[in-house]
Amino acid sequence: MPLPKALFFDIFGSIVDWRGSIAREAEILLAPLGHKLDWPAFADAWRNEYQPGMEEVRSGAIPFSRLDVIHRRNLERILPRFALSALDEATRTNLNLAWHRLDGWPDSAPGFARLRKKFRLAPVSNGNISLMADLARRNGFIWDAILGAEVAGDYKPKPRVYLAACEAFGFAPGECMMVAAHAKDLKAAKACGLQTGFIARPNEHGPGKGETSPPEGVDFAAGDLLKLADALGA
Amino acid sequence: MPLPKALFFDIFGSIVDWRGSIAREAEILLAPLGHKLDWPAFADAWRNEYQPGMEEVRSGAIPFSRLDVIHRRNLERILPRFALSALDEATRTNLNLAWHRLDGWPDSAPGFARLRKKFRLAPVSNGNISLMADLARRNGFIWDAILGAEVAGDYKPKPRVYLAACEAFGFAPGECMMVAAHAKDLKAAKACGLQTGFIARPNEHGPGKGETSPPEGVDFAAGDLLKLADALGA
Repeated sequence: MPLPKALFFDIFGSIVDWRGSIAREAEILLAPLGHKLDWPAFADAWRNEYQPGMEEVRSGAIPFSRLDVIHRRNLERILPRFALSALDEATRTNLNLAWHRLDGWPDSAPGFARLRKKFRLAPVSNGNISLMADLARRNGFIWDAILGAEVAGDYKPKPRVYLAACEAFGFAPGECMMVAAHAKDLKAAKACGLQTGFIARPNEHGPGKGETSPPEGVDFAAGDLLKLADALGA
Repeated sequence: MPLPKALFFDIFGSIVDWRGSIAREAEILLAPLGHKLDWPAFADAWRNEYQPGMEEVRSGAIPFSRLDVIHRRNLERILPRFALSALDEATRTNLNLAWHRLDGWPDSAPGFARLRKKFRLAPVSNGNISLMADLARRNGFIWDAILGAEVAGDYKPKPRVYLAACEAFGFAPGECMMVAAHAKDLKAAKACGLQTGFIARPNEHGPGKGETSPPEGVDFAAGDLLKLADALGA
């Protein structure tokens, strides 16, 4: 199989450490207000609402809404559990933007820099365009375009999201590779005809809690983005 | 009025020299095949089909189609006039991609580099995403995202294109500035509530043939992108 022309990237967990970053951002905002939470547990609770929140769009129950909107709905749902129901509007708004302030894994920025010399790069994430643009600025990621859910008008793993990304670059699905640390994402991309690349993020959900084994039938598997660049000759 | 947070750019004519580049690319491809054309006249003829081609989408006569598709339809329309009806498919395809190989005006790349330190930047062009991505690679433009017609599903000067760009960045229209060398584009953006910046491209349509006077009511006017950066303190 010839090498792909474009690489598409899952972002949350695969490229950035959402758990550690959300825990940190929540503490920065809420600790000075006198709140004492299990910060990683707060991050986990928020993230646990992620798939159900998007499923409302995927199922057609609500029209497409950017992830910033879904994140805010999900935040409202978990605040009572953490005794945060009295949080003022400005703090809620700022807290919701914590998702725009996630840090990349150490290999992410140098990995992109190497891969971009050989391939067209784009995030194909469920995150919205402004969220991706903020992560790129914060972490020094240089991409060719921001593709994904907002451009497609639906959420992964719906086929439209992968296929819309291929179309936007003018490539056939087989000329594109989805790169992710999640088997579910890669299986959905493969079903659309894309090549697939697995990277391991063993600590995504906390120390030792992440996917480490590539799903069956993956075209490339690597420990991180730099090792994927090695494997792809970039 | 406070400075904008985001700058949106018209691309064809405002940032890149479509006329000189299309004339050059057409000659590179067609001269070796024995064709002798007035190359700038060929570029002008192709570009003259641009607004009528997009008007079919804007009016609802045809569904949204990427500019690559419109460019190809327009190419078919002008080939007979230049005795090129016998051109083979591969050459037509390659010729159509000449629009992905346009050169920036000399100030464009250094202007973007300065402006990006202070503002979020995106093309808001009628060109499609892959076309913009190719121009960015070729010319070393670094943008925060590619917005414009393909993301909005319609063509400028329809209001949706400007407003969808603001929404994608999560900014109010008044927090964004449209930058262009064309009064029509700026008037439409202003009607949507955006700030406006005029740059002069006096040779867009050939020596001495371009807009040099800013339209009434423009917020900033500058000779080129570097002078706009001066004016905006970037």
